[in-house]
Formats: sequence, structure tokens, C-alpha cells
Amino acid sequence: MNREQLAEAVKMQMPSRRWEHTLGVVSSAVELSRKYGADPAKADLAALLHDYCKYWPIEKQRQTYLEEGLPEDVLDYDPQLLHGPLAAVIARKQFGIDDEEVLGAIRYHTSGRAGMTLLEKIVCLADYIEPGRDFPGVHNIREIAEHSLEKALIAGFDSTIRFLLEKGKKVYPDTIMARNSLIAELERQRSD
Amino acid sequence: MNREQLAEAVKMQMPSRRWEHTLGVVSSAVELSRKYGADPAKADLAALLHDYCKYWPIEKQRQTYLEEGLPEDVLDYDPQLLHGPLAAVIARKQFGIDDEEVLGAIRYHTSGRAGMTLLEKIVCLADYIEPGRDFPGVHNIREIAEHSLEKALIAGFDSTIRFLLEKGKKVYPDTIMARNSLIAELERQRSD
Repeated sequence: MNREQLAEAVKMQMPSRRWEHTLGVVSSAVELSRKYGADPAKADLAALLHDYCKYWPIEKQRQTYLEEGLPEDVLDYDPQLLHGPLAAVIARKQFGIDDEEVLGAIRYHTSGRAGMTLLEKIVCLADYIEPGRDFPGVHNIREIAEHSLEKALIAGFDSTIRFLLEKGKKVYPDTIMARNSLIAELERQRSD
Repeated sequence: MNREQLAEAVKMQMPSRRWEHTLGVVSSAVELSRKYGADPAKADLAALLHDYCKYWPIEKQRQTYLEEGLPEDVLDYDPQLLHGPLAAVIARKQFGIDDEEVLGAIRYHTSGRAGMTLLEKIVCLADYIEPGRDFPGVHNIREIAEHSLEKALIAGFDSTIRFLLEKGKKVYPDTIMARNSLIAELERQRSD
């Protein structure tokens, strides 16, 4: 399956506005890769596939998640956390992608995790700042992304955490660990 | 050692404004105990001792913490997280307190934890809302405390988390787990 066929397969899985979002994430992820020294082809592939399962009915997401034996702690949190790990499974099983960097960037694009790879940071940040996004603070995050991938991603997680506090919702601990880990990275950079 | 002697011993460990704060926490914790059905004598004792180690030099806190073999994950976070577990050690070793409810309420009064006991919730919340406290949102938390211990404590943790986001500081995961656990408790109450 070539890039064009893969894009067509992804497009079929979602409404047109989400496909526009996917194209935005692809474009931002490729741009961030060039800026921060990741492989643009890997960023393109991960971004293209990241939301493959986003519009599956939640019950189908939950069931497939269980069938695949994915880590169950996430089931206590927002069901929006399921589609990343699921898309990584589809990428491997259905599209034969076995590049762990690409799979990780798909898997953790919503939750983040402690010790994110360069490509994971890029796809996660691209998902926050692609041109179609419009939420309080997004301009600020885009500006920070001009000079620091880590600081921009921290600001992205901050916006997610603030949103969850505002709504009285639980915060997935891996997102906190991702943010803590990025702060620790910045501290190490400063002390080097 | 009677209550008066114990109070005198605590008072000697801190500047007078912190002693005033301790008396405020005692008063709020006893009041919350009466309201929410905990033992006021235990609330009094835990509140009296909760900040015993707060004004020890941080290096002494860190060293004693290590000597006592306390959980080391906390050492990666704000040193303000050390004085609760330390005060629980002092309460046991120096003052012979062996009531696990009281010790838990001292130990977790800053961090919180998943599955907090009634007394732990009360002392932690009293520390947020005692009459001397003045921070953005404290009036709101006091109002919520009139009708829900859990909702008030969630609002307290929210204020701590927002403060840490604002300052670009790491968030101790147990505080997130404490808040998540309280939200889950409220969900269970609603579905009963």
C-alpha cells in the first residue's frame, strides 16, 4: 500500500473536518521534524495514522482495546485516551508498520508518557498546534514551539490539565508524568 | 506528655505565625470532624502535629527522610512534600503515637493519596481552609466545605495543581491520584 492508498484508507475512517485536522497534523509534524531534527517521513506516517480509530464508536474502541490486551489502567479515564493505542495496533496489524518510533508516536499522541522520544513529542505537539486548532492559549503554544519543543509541549499539557480541572474530570497520571519528565529534561539541559 | 506539653513542644519548632496557622488547622479539623463524623480528638492530635517538621532546614529534612527509609520517589518533587511523612515519624518515635489513622492524617496532609481516609481528608482540607489562610479561591473552598468534604478537597487540590502549572513546577503524582480517587468516590455516591 503506497502513501496515497494509505491516506485514502485513513480518510474513509473519519468525517471530513477530522480529515482536515489530520492533514494539519501531518503538515505541522513534518515542519517540526525538519526544525528539531527528526525524520520527516516517520513524522508524516505517524501523523497520518494517529486518529485512525478516533471516530469508531466508543463501545467498539473499548472492546477492541480489551481484545488486544492493552494496559487496562486507562479504562478508568476519559475514553478519548483509547484511540491512540488502538491506532498503533491497526498500524502494525493492518498496515504492517513495525517501526517502534512511529508506533510510539501514534500510541502516545494523546496521553504522552514519561521519557517521550523526539518523534512522540513532535506528533503530540503537532496535534495541539496544527493550523486548524483554535482553543485558549493555542497561539502562545505555537509561539513557544518556535524555540522549544519541550516548553511548547508542557504548555500543551498545561492546557489539557487546566481543561480537566475546569470540568471536574480525572487527569490521566501518564500525562502528569509526561509533563514532569519534560520539566526534568529542561532542568538537565540548564544544568549541563 | 499531656496535650498542653505536646502543644508546647510543637510551638517550639516553628515561628509564631506558623503556630497560629497550626492552631487554625486544629480548630478547622475539629469542626470538620464534628460535621463529617470523625473523632475530634484524633483530628486535634493530627492537626496539632502536622507541621512539626515544616521549619526544619530542608537539608535536615532530606537527610532524616533518607535515614528513616521513607519512599524515595518524593525526593524528585517539591521539598515541601517531606515534612508530612517526617512529622508522622516524629509522632510515632518521639511522642509514642501509634494510631494509624492519626499518623496517616499527618503523613499525607500535603500530598494526599488515592483512597484517603476520613481523617486524612479532614486534616488535609483543614490545612487549606483554616481561618488564617488567604489565597485565590479559598472562600470558594470554605463554602464547598459546608456541604461536601470531597468536593472541597478536590477544589483544594485544584488550587495546588493550578499553582504548580503556573510556576512550571512538577506535580506530585499522588496528588493527582488523590484527586482522581475523590472524583471516583463522588461518581460512586451518585450511582448508589
